[in-house]
This record gives sequence, C-alpha cells and structure tokens, in this order.
Amino acid sequence: MISNQALIQSFTMTRGKTESLCNPLEIEDYVIQSMPDVSPPKWHLAHTTWFFETFLLLPLTHYKPFNPIFQTLFNSYYQKLGQPYPRHKRGYLARPTVQQVYAYRHYVDEKIIKYLHELPQDELQRIAPLIILGLEHEQQHQELLLMDIKHNFSLDPVYPIYQRKSDKTHSPTQDVDWVAFSGGVMEAGYAGDGFCFDNELPRHSHFLADYQLANRLVTNDEYLEFIEAGGYKTPDWWLSDGWDAVVNNQWQAPAYWQQQGNEWYVFTLNGLGKLNPNEPVVHVSYYEADAYARFKQARLPSEMEWEHAATTLPAKLKGNFLEENHLHPIHASEDETVKQLLGDVWEWTLSPYTPYPGYRPLKGALGEYNGKFMSNQMVLRGGSCVTPSSHIRTTYRNFFQPDKRWQFSGIRLAK
Amino acid sequence: MISNQALIQSFTMTRGKTESLCNPLEIEDYVIQSMPDVSPPKWHLAHTTWFFETFLLLPLTHYKPFNPIFQTLFNSYYQKLGQPYPRHKRGYLARPTVQQVYAYRHYVDEKIIKYLHELPQDELQRIAPLIILGLEHEQQHQELLLMDIKHNFSLDPVYPIYQRKSDKTHSPTQDVDWVAFSGGVMEAGYAGDGFCFDNELPRHSHFLADYQLANRLVTNDEYLEFIEAGGYKTPDWWLSDGWDAVVNNQWQAPAYWQQQGNEWYVFTLNGLGKLNPNEPVVHVSYYEADAYARFKQARLPSEMEWEHAATTLPAKLKGNFLEENHLHPIHASEDETVKQLLGDVWEWTLSPYTPYPGYRPLKGALGEYNGKFMSNQMVLRGGSCVTPSSHIRTTYRNFFQPDKRWQFSGIRLAK
Amino acid sequence: MISNQALIQSFTMTRGKTESLCNPLEIEDYVIQSMPDVSPPKWHLAHTTWFFETFLLLPLTHYKPFNPIFQTLFNSYYQKLGQPYPRHKRGYLARPTVQQVYAYRHYVDEKIIKYLHELPQDELQRIAPLIILGLEHEQQHQELLLMDIKHNFSLDPVYPIYQRKSDKTHSPTQDVDWVAFSGGVMEAGYAGDGFCFDNELPRHSHFLADYQLANRLVTNDEYLEFIEAGGYKTPDWWLSDGWDAVVNNQWQAPAYWQQQGNEWYVFTLNGLGKLNPNEPVVHVSYYEADAYARFKQARLPSEMEWEHAATTLPAKLKGNFLEENHLHPIHASEDETVKQLLGDVWEWTLSPYTPYPGYRPLKGALGEYNGKFMSNQMVLRGGSCVTPSSHIRTTYRNFFQPDKRWQFSGIRLAK
Amino acid sequence: MISNQALIQSFTMTRGKTESLCNPLEIEDYVIQSMPDVSPPKWHLAHTTWFFETFLLLPLTHYKPFNPIFQTLFNSYYQKLGQPYPRHKRGYLARPTVQQVYAYRHYVDEKIIKYLHELPQDELQRIAPLIILGLEHEQQHQELLLMDIKHNFSLDPVYPIYQRKSDKTHSPTQDVDWVAFSGGVMEAGYAGDGFCFDNELPRHSHFLADYQLANRLVTNDEYLEFIEAGGYKTPDWWLSDGWDAVVNNQWQAPAYWQQQGNEWYVFTLNGLGKLNPNEPVVHVSYYEADAYARFKQARLPSEMEWEHAATTLPAKLKGNFLEENHLHPIHASEDETVKQLLGDVWEWTLSPYTPYPGYRPLKGALGEYNGKFMSNQMVLRGGSCVTPSSHIRTTYRNFFQPDKRWQFSGIRLAK
Repeated sequence: MISNQALIQSFTMTRGKTESLCNPLEIEDYVIQSMPDVSPPKWHLAHTTWFFETFLLLPLTHYKPFNPIFQTLFNSYYQKLGQPYPRHKRGYLARPTVQQVYAYRHYVDEKIIKYLHELPQDELQRIAPLIILGLEHEQQHQELLLMDIKHNFSLDPVYPIYQRKSDKTHSPTQDVDWVAFSGGVMEAGYAGDGFCFDNELPRHSHFLADYQLANRLVTNDEYLEFIEAGGYKTPDWWLSDGWDAVVNNQWQAPAYWQQQGNEWYVFTLNGLGKLNPNEPVVHVSYYEADAYARFKQARLPSEMEWEHAATTLPAKLKGNFLEENHLHPIHASEDETVKQLLGDVWEWTLSPYTPYPGYRPLKGALGEYNGKFMSNQMVLRGGSCVTPSSHIRTTYRNFFQPDKRWQFSGIRLAK
Repeated sequence: MISNQALIQSFTMTRGKTESLCNPLEIEDYVIQSMPDVSPPKWHLAHTTWFFETFLLLPLTHYKPFNPIFQTLFNSYYQKLGQPYPRHKRGYLARPTVQQVYAYRHYVDEKIIKYLHELPQDELQRIAPLIILGLEHEQQHQELLLMDIKHNFSLDPVYPIYQRKSDKTHSPTQDVDWVAFSGGVMEAGYAGDGFCFDNELPRHSHFLADYQLANRLVTNDEYLEFIEAGGYKTPDWWLSDGWDAVVNNQWQAPAYWQQQGNEWYVFTLNGLGKLNPNEPVVHVSYYEADAYARFKQARLPSEMEWEHAATTLPAKLKGNFLEENHLHPIHASEDETVKQLLGDVWEWTLSPYTPYPGYRPLKGALGEYNGKFMSNQMVLRGGSCVTPSSHIRTTYRNFFQPDKRWQFSGIRLAK
Repeated sequence: MISNQALIQSFTMTRGKTESLCNPLEIEDYVIQSMPDVSPPKWHLAHTTWFFETFLLLPLTHYKPFNPIFQTLFNSYYQKLGQPYPRHKRGYLARPTVQQVYAYRHYVDEKIIKYLHELPQDELQRIAPLIILGLEHEQQHQELLLMDIKHNFSLDPVYPIYQRKSDKTHSPTQDVDWVAFSGGVMEAGYAGDGFCFDNELPRHSHFLADYQLANRLVTNDEYLEFIEAGGYKTPDWWLSDGWDAVVNNQWQAPAYWQQQGNEWYVFTLNGLGKLNPNEPVVHVSYYEADAYARFKQARLPSEMEWEHAATTLPAKLKGNFLEENHLHPIHASEDETVKQLLGDVWEWTLSPYTPYPGYRPLKGALGEYNGKFMSNQMVLRGGSCVTPSSHIRTTYRNFFQPDKRWQFSGIRLAK
Repeated sequence: MISNQALIQSFTMTRGKTESLCNPLEIEDYVIQSMPDVSPPKWHLAHTTWFFETFLLLPLTHYKPFNPIFQTLFNSYYQKLGQPYPRHKRGYLARPTVQQVYAYRHYVDEKIIKYLHELPQDELQRIAPLIILGLEHEQQHQELLLMDIKHNFSLDPVYPIYQRKSDKTHSPTQDVDWVAFSGGVMEAGYAGDGFCFDNELPRHSHFLADYQLANRLVTNDEYLEFIEAGGYKTPDWWLSDGWDAVVNNQWQAPAYWQQQGNEWYVFTLNGLGKLNPNEPVVHVSYYEADAYARFKQARLPSEMEWEHAATTLPAKLKGNFLEENHLHPIHASEDETVKQLLGDVWEWTLSPYTPYPGYRPLKGALGEYNGKFMSNQMVLRGGSCVTPSSHIRTTYRNFFQPDKRWQFSGIRLAK
C-alpha cells in the first residue's frame, strides 16, 4: 500500500528529472527532428505530460484542459484516442513554444499533485498503478530524450556538446571468458508484486539447452577487427536483409563513428573525440551484432538465456546507468563473473519480440502500449548508460527493429 | 542406398513436371514480371536448371557450359557465386528466348542423366544428396511458378485462364470444433533419415503449454464477417505494422478479391468467378491472419504447436496438393479430427522464422539457401494446393514476410 | 558616383529591414524548415550575411572569419565555393543559435561599414556594385523570409499569427476591361544605368503581335467559379504535367485555402480567416493559372507583352508592396487603366525562363546567381505585397518551377 | 483532291512498314517494357491500330469492335476517351498475344480499306485529313518502336542484335566551319497546303538577330574531349537541374556508351561495338548538349534560327533517314554548306516547347495530341536516322524533357 505522500514524491522526482535532463539545451535544440524516428525534445516534454493529462485528468469532470489541441499534437500512436499528428512532422511545430510546453507541464503537475493529495486511500490504490505506469513511461522518454538529442547534435557540423567529458582511465581489455550455464525447464517473466510492463507477463515455463555467455561486452577494438577484415564489404557474414541495409545505408562502421585519415573518431554526448578501443562497442544494429557474432563463430544469446543468466547470478542492480552520468558505456570492471550485464549498453538478443504464451494486453487505449509492436522487432536486454536504474528489471524487454542504431545497443556473445 | 536408375527416374519426373506446368502458357506469358517478388516463368525454368549446372556440372572438368552468361542471369541470390542479375529487372530479359531456355534445360538434363548413369556406386551416394536438394528446390519453384503466373494473370484486364474449372459441390460450413492437446517437454525438428532442409534441424527439446486448435480452416464467409464488421477500417485489431500495410496498400480484402456492386468476385487460376463462401480463405497476409484471430478473440498457433499436433494425430500425408489439380483450396472434408492440416493453404503461425538451437547451415554457397533469410519473416506450415505432395513434411518450415499475400496462405485459429 | 555615406546608409537600412521583419518571431520560429523549398528564418539571416562575408570580406588579407564552418553551412548553391551543406537538411541545424546568428550579422556589418567608410573614391566605385548586388540579394531574401514563415506557420495546427490584420473594406469586383496594345518590333531588357540583374540584359529587339491585357487581376470569387465548375476534377483544362500535379498533390484549391463545411477559409500572415471574395487570388501554381486561363478561353500574357505594357503605360512604381505592410494582395483600385500591374501578386507569364539573346552571366562564382536556373522554370513579373518596392523594375524577371505555389503568385489574363 | 486509291495506297504502305520493322523480333521481344518511357513493341502495334479504330471506325453505326477492352488497354493518354490503362504497367500485359494483336491490326485494316474504297468523293475529302493524321501518328510510332527496341535490348546482358551492321568507311572529321546568317523580321511555321501538325501553326512573324551555325554535327571524338576534361565531374558547365541529373543518374557518358578498360564501346541496333570517333554523338540529353556547348564557349541554336537556316538553304529533304536503313547517324558528307541538317540526329535547340502566338489545338479528343505537352520540354529539329523521310518538314517540331536520352538526339553548335 503506497501512501499519498510517497506517490507524490515519486511523481515530483521523476517529472523533475526529465526537466533537468534538458538543462544543457538551448531553446533551438528543443525543436529539431533530425530523422522520423527522433522526436524534438520539446515534444517529449509535452507528450509525457499528455499521458498524465489524458489518462488521469481528462476523465475528471471538473478538469479544464490546458489546450485542447494538445490532445492531437502530443498523442504518439494511440489510435483509439483519435488520429495523432503525423510523427515525421513533429519537427515542423514551432509552436507551442518551449516556454508554453513548460507551462503545460507545470499546469498538469500541479493538478496531478493536488489530485493525489486529496485522493482517499481506496481510490489511491486504484489510481496508483496508472500514475506509476505514467512515471515508467516518463523514464522511457528520459532515455529517448538523450538518444534523440545525440542524433540531432550529431548531424550538426558544429558538433554541439551536451556535457563536458569527465576523464576516465582505461585499462587494456582482458580476454573473454566463457561462463557456462546448465539448461532444463525454466520459468521466465516477472514474478514479483511491484510494477512491470504487460509484455513481461505471464510468467511461464520454457526449455533451455545448456549454453555459455561471454563474461563481458564486445569492445571497440574487437569490432575494429571485423571492420578491418572486410566486415562491411563482403556479404558472407550477413543476413540477407542485413546486407541490404549495409548497401542501402552505406554503412561502414557503427553509428556516430567517422574516419579522418587513419584515425577513428566517435561522436558522443561529450562531443566529437577519438575512439577509445577499450570501451564496449555501441550503436550497432541487430544486423551488425549478428554479423559480428557469425564472424567470431559465435552467436547472440536468446532473451530466455539472458534472463536466466541474470536471474541465476548473484542478484544486483548495479551498473553504468543514467545516474552515473557517464552517458556512455565504460570498460568492464574486474569484480564480476559476468560483467556489464546491467547498464552500459542494451544487449541484442536473437529473439524476435513476440508475446509470451497467454499474453494479455492492458484494457482500453493503454492496450496499445506494447502489444501492437510485436512484429519485425528484436528484443534487447539489460538497460544502458542512459536508462534510469530504477527503471530496469532482469525481466525487462526492450525492442527495436533490427536496422535501428540510434539506441545505445551493443553486443554480448553466446554459444 | 539409392540406385542410379531410381535417381535418374526421380530427376526425370520432377524436371518433366515443371515443364508440364507450363503447358497452358503462351510464349508471351513466360516473360512477364508483374512485381519484384514475382519472376517470369521463363526465369524459373532457367534458374532451376542453373542450380544443377552450377552445383553438379560446373565442378566437372570436362563440362562446357551452355552459355556462360547464364551463370549471372539465373543466379537468384547466391552472393558467393558472384553478383546476381538484379531481381527486379528479370522482366526486362527478352532473351534468351523461351525456346533457348528449353534448349538449356534439355542440354543440362542430358548431361546430368549421362553423368548419373555412369556414376559408380560410392560416388553416387556422395552426389545423390545434391541431386535431391536440386529436385526439392525444383519443387519449390513449381509452387512459385503457379503463384507467379496467378499474379501476372491477375493484373491483365483480359483475365487469362490458366485451366478451366472442374465443378465442385460445396456443402455448408460446419461450426468449428476445438481440439485440445496436452503440453509438456516435446521434441521438434526432423527425425528421419530421408531428405530435409537444414532449417528443420537439429531435432531439439522445447516446452509447450496446453493448447487447442480449430478443427478446420477459416472460410470465406467467416472472413467476410470480419470485413463487414469494419475489419479493414479500424486499427483496433491490427499490429502497428499491419495497420500501416492496410493504409499504404489500401487493402480492403484478401488478394485477388474484387467487389462488383454487392457481389464479391475472386481471381483464381480458373479465371475470374464468384467467391465461394464455403472455401477456405486464401491469399491473406500474416497481418490479416493475426487481425482476424484477434477479432475472433483467438490467436494463431505457434509452429511448435502445429508440428506437435501434426505429429500426434494419426499420421497421413493426404490432402489437397498439387497432384489433385484443383489449384485452389477446397472445403473441409468430413472424416478427420483436424481437417486440412496438410494441403489446401499454408497456415500462418505466430512464430518468427528463427534458427533452431544449434542450427548449422550447409557448407559453401548452399549455406545461403535458408539461413540468411532468418529475419523479418514468419513461419507457415502444412503445404498448399499448389505444393507437390512429395515435397511436404510435418516438420517443413515455409516462411514469408508478414505483408506478403501472393502465396496460397490461410488461417487456422488456436487458443 | 555614389558616396561612402550613401552606400553605408543603404547598407544599414536594408540590413536593418531584414532584422525588423523577424521582430514578431519566437526563437523556435527561426529553426523550422517545413519543406525542402523553405529555409529556416535563421538560415536566411546567416546566408545574406555569408554573401557579404564571402564576396567582400574574405578577399581582404586582414579579415578573420567569424566562424570558418559558416562558409559551408550558409552557402546556398555556389558550387565553385565548395560543397554547400545540403539544402533539405537546413532544418536539422539547432546551432548556431539565433543569438549567434545575430552576432554573426553584427560582426560582418561592423566590418563592412568600417571597410566602406575607409575606402578611397576609386576603390569605392569598383566595390559599390558588389555591395549593391548584396543588398538586392538581401531584398530577395526579405521576400523569401515572409514566404517561408507563412509556409512554416501554415502547417502548425495552432496557426500562429505573424501580424494582426488591419481592417480593410472591399468594394465588389468590377467587370474586367480588356486593354489593347499594338504590336511591332520592340525593345526589351534593362536600359538604364542603375542596378539590374544579369538576366535582364542585354537589351534586345523582338517582335510582338497585337495583344490585349485584362485591366485587373483575377479575384477569389472568379477563381471559385473554376473550382465549382469542377476545375480540379476534370483534366480537360490542364497541361499534362499540370494534371499530374493535381493528382499527385491532391490539389483542390490554391495553397493555404481550406474548406470547413460550406465555407472557405484561408491562412495568411494574419492567421486563419474567411476567404475574401474580392481580393486577387494568390498562391496558385503556373499550372493552375494556365488551366484557369483556358477555362476562361483566354491565355496568360508573355513576359514580353507584360514588359511592353508596363513600359508603355504612364510610368509609376506605386503598388501594394512590402512597405504597405498588408502582406496580402488587396482589391483593385479605381484609378488606373491597368490596375495592380506592380505589387499585390507576381503575375505568371506563359514564358519559360530562358536567356535573352547574347546573355552573359557574371564572372566567377557570382555567375551562378541566375544563369544556371534557366530550365524548367516560368517567368513571373511585377513584384508582390511582400516585395520591397525599391527592389522592383518593369524589366525584373522572377522565376519559379510551374508547380510551385508558396510564392505570392496570381493571375492576369491576356488574349 | 486525293483519290480513294491514293489514300488506300498510303494507308497500306505505312501500315505495312510498321509491321516490317518488327520482322527481326522474337515473340518475347514484343512484350518488354524496360522503363516507363518505353512501350512494348506489341503495344505500339495495337495503339496505332486503336487510333484508326477509335477515330474512324467507332463513330460508324455498323462497326463491331474487335475487342471492347482494347479501347482502354491501348489508349495512350486521351483523358477525354476514358481512363487509359496505366502507362508504366504496359509491360505487365501478357495478353493479348502478339498473334491477337496482328489479328487486330488486320481486322481494322480491312475495315478501313473497305470503308475508304466505298467512300463518295465529298465524304472522302472530309475524312482524308483524319486518315493522314493517323498515318503521321503511325510514323511517329515507327520511330518510337526502334527507340524502344534499342532501349529494351540494351539492358539485356546478351545484347540482342536487331540488324547486322553494313560496313561503313569513315574519313577523319573536318574542322567545323561557321556559316553566318543575317537577322531581321522573319516568318516561321508551316506555310504550305499539305499536312502539318497543329503545333507548327500559325505561321507568324518573329525577330532574329544575326547568328552563325556550325556546318556539321558534334562528333564522338569531340564529345570525348569534354568527358576527358572532366565534363561529368565538375558542375561548372551545367545547368543546376542538369547537374542534379548527372549526380542522380550517375551519368558519365551519353546513353548506350560503356567503358571497358581504356576502350569505349557503344550499343546500337547492330549490337555492341567499338565507338566510332567520327560519327555524330547521339543519345545525349538537353543538359549534356547545353553543357557541351558551354564547354566550347558556344551555345545551341534556337528553333527559329534552325528553321530559318533550313528554309534559307537550297531546299532538299535528303539525309540519313529510316529508309537508308543505317539506323545510326553517319559521318558528315562533303557536299553541303550546312551538313546533316536533316536526318542523322534530332538537334537539340535552346527553345522550350511553347505554343506559337495564336496557337489553336484540334477540336475534341485530338486536341490532346500536342498542346497539353507544352511545358517542361525542349524543341528538337530535323529528324533522325530512324525517322521516315516522308514524315519530316523544316517546320517540324519534336519535343522531349531535357533529361531524356533514349531518342536519337545530338548536338549542333551555334553562336
């Protein structure tokens, strides 16, 4: 049983965190949409607010909307709530201004807090899950904000810097160790009584053969071997669709890498700098992860293997998450059996994103949250350096199309 | 141990069957490519020949190719054998003429038969699997030939007729019965010692929950209910990608259906005729199959469920296959527990096409046969009315992208 | 002979006017690019500055560029000056910020003024034409700024208002009178000793048959007749390319018009309001102008007819130009033989934009200013309500592709 | 006054010529459409027949159409006659077969001949212009047939040969002489009482300045100088749209040229062979012709200059036309002041295709013949080696979009 005060505090902190992520931005930075996958930061600020307004406040009889047209402008994809404003045109919206968007946030926040404050206990228990869903949703957009700002900035020839880099020393990469796990009939899916998304349910049995996981992520220097062996020039290692993606997009390296003479540079939220060979490779597509694994005569883990390993190992939710403020993966620490399982980079699995047996989406418009995306996407696990640590679980299922690279995605090998 | 004569006979019969499928064609019909997925009939005739020439004859020192440029023209997608002629331009090839393509077939056939005839026993056993793979490949193209001719003809306003219809009586559709199966740890994948494709291996364990299958396929009149309930007008039942496909392709019904006034017509290999309400619905995409299942508050079977059911039931490989010469699905017969499991239509499953645990592709260029397509496709099971019956197995895995509809694909519900 | 002070004053006034046009903008408004033809207002401010920096300051040995990367970012299309930043990605540039762009303007302005101040007389006469070209160029971008702001605002569902409307009374439209002109061998092209663009030269002889011009522009209510007669639904009145444009762009009315129930509304720089039937129709493409003329069994004037008429009539450069601050065409005044010839709307002519006989482009990179656009465009004449009056001449040749409509273009009939 | 017999003879000869041009074709060759601009040969045969059926026979009360669906299938672009079958899908029509198309031709021919035979004199004079228009139309399609067959064959890696080459000796190219013409007020447009197209009328006055024409066409070796000087690598010589065409289409030479090692080859209707340096360059776009002219510090002639020169010079209609059966331009003969003015290649002019002052299109559906294409195209003059000689006039205006190259178009310089 959650108390009014606890829920208000969660609400205030998460909502505040989103705004603080925008502190380094100039007003101009809030408006840019550098590809259809990306949304302007301003839009994220408004859309997360729209979620609370739509699902919490609008059903209240006395609530007066901040601006009725925002119902359309800031609906992402909920078809049951009317035709959303076209996604690829979000960068055409000069107005509402950034100031008006903040006013919208504060208007809705005030109403929500007042509402939560006054809610009797039984009502509070009924409403709390919706508030929590909204805050989990907001955390997803905190990650998207950083992904999208990074992409926007990367296309600007002046290479804006989101935050100055803190110096990090890097010890040389250790050889990979393979950690063995025994198979059998296992249980997967969320088992606790806290929050989880509908796609983590129901908990169900499945069969696993014995498997091994690499004890750390693939690094830049390892990935460079693949490039130098002609990885992007010969179709042998690639899925057919993957090779088409290489050719059509003229990929020659992970996203954000560029070659100047003989030197590799990489654009990060710290600006443009030399590639660090010991860091985990990041911003690779599924196709690249899969091709790299084949090059190494290995494979990617399945999501069931990953979840089993993460559950089996001494439980902890430590890792290089958003709170560390690196905003970039770091080299493997010395002290764990399987390193970097949580945080750093989302790990591609070889599992397509499909419903668990017996899956039931949420009722109403919120049923569109996860279920309708269960085709043509691959599962990623473990969270990244721009994921809030309180957002992640070992049963958490992230998903992207196999050609996407602007998320912080990397590679762990299996066999 | 197969004998020289038996192998030659298989070879002769399968090669002959392909040609006899082209008997109804005019020369002009051999040249058409009405969409990039489709190949001209002439191309199928040549490509299946190319397979034998490339993998059997070219390695022989004394073999003189029929025409060296055919190595490029009729390579489908084997990147290891050099850059294939672009797929979407196959309809630009006036030459070689149909007559020359037949001459190519007969030249290669003669060489292969002579070669097989003279082969000593030990060599024969080594070579036989490659011949058999070539014949299985040829059978796949027999089905493709009919799929592609149908598509080509359907776009021609004179609606050519491939074969005249034999009259069939149709009893009214019976209500669906649900057949229950018990779950547990099961084995799947090919277990015999005959031919199978690499993607059916290795046989492996997996876990199944209890499930139920509909005892027959979904019919046209049942699918019409979905259309009339606004199935193609409201996004509620659709995957997000599926709804995009509906909007972008302006789908309003299965492929080959057209409405004239209040009446539905359908184009088949028998020409244009009235829709028969009792026949199984065919030429639906995965998205339509999935949306229909959701509309009926059911789901599609997984490929493991389908295989388990097909293996559990009294084994027989009877069904409405190519040999029946209907070239169209027929209504459910009375005498089986689960009807139409084999033949009639390929049944969409909810399983993405992925490698079985421990999957190993063939060596060399033939390794490109199956494995490189294991992304963004869904598995279909059971064969169809244009599949040779000797080609199918209960472990056979067919696969198409979820938006494809020109294959003979239909719907069986599960829950 | 122009004096240092006069030139500095021209420079200061024109540069200041550009900035004052941006007074109504929020920072967010400066960043938007709502179609590839449009540039963000910020970009216009920088590009016009780039022109002075590139052609005047960079050749000076002691000049230190404000920011070297601006040479690429704000080059529009001068291939001789290096690869320009891609036009359709100007809306991806969050940085430089608006503040930095203004700083760039003021930095360059200061250097130019200092330079002009110190220039000896003979040098001044040599340099003055380049300064004047830069100011004429800046005036073109003043018009583009308003065109582009209008387009950007029109796509934003909140319909931002650039300036509040001043009330205007509108008397009913008078019937058209036809004014007759006698033909013969005429002279066309600029004849004075002031500034003109290279495409207005050389003055040359040409032959004109007798012709007639309508004494006023086509109005909204006249154009509505065309719409209501099925103008956008039947191909009869249209050029073949024009009909393709209607179908592909789903045109149903001029740009910025929208129908709500039975009422027509129009978006202007004053926001969204009811269509005024007596105003000249504006924002039509060449195809629409041509189709309308055919519907009226008339034609558009040639540019030679227009120029001859404008030169023959009692000379005056009065009209509804930018200085009037209407930013929208107004109804025909009573007191002229041929009304609205200058200002209000650019008048489409039936003349493709081609070089005059003996045309020579400017030397060097400035040779790319006009000549390289002499294909696939049509000439428009007379200036519009967003053209600075000091920018226009009766020999002035504007040009746009025949399917463009975001410029303030309208229709005068001829026969 | 034309006699029944004379008209029937014209009809028979022209219709027969079209069929004899198809003699070298295999049935497969009739079906191919290798780009949207091209039509399958079968379609040309049917469409020219459709013209006579539609405009001559269908108005007759007793006429029974060969097949009513052909009215849609073989309508090219006459919107007034109903929605034509989509142009870019003509290559999807397997049926009607080639044999059926010939049957269609012979059915219509027989009806027309019978009709013409029985027509009384006064009716004959009324009908003759329509027959003649149909035959001129047919001659245009004779040229299109050869253009389209050439394009289709060029994309087939086996390089089919339409006809074997007759050996031709080539003397070295002579230096260009410039022939001077005096200007003044001239008359242009058709003046006789024979057949001409509506776009050659009305005859009208225009003014010409003095000009000079090169006495022969530009040759391959001259054009190679342009290529070797980096013509396709630097934007300096190109119109802006032209440079876009170079980049987007990756042009590196005229159409049908290919480089193998250091040697240039060219595909012609005689197959693939070495480039002959002394022949006129052919299959260049307007953009290439214009860029080449600029490279040579010259320009293209205007269509009025060309027509004036052709009319002024000692009249003759001799030249390398279709009847010569070279099907390729040949080197300049010695005996004329201005060589190759007629035949060999269509000469690009710098004149956009616009109506002559006072132009009136034909009445009814035939009004769509020429007028509706008067935008975005350039005029070419003089006929080519695949134009029937009886089809050409010095007032004849051909027209193509400036990026088209599959017509036999070349370059004559002017200044």
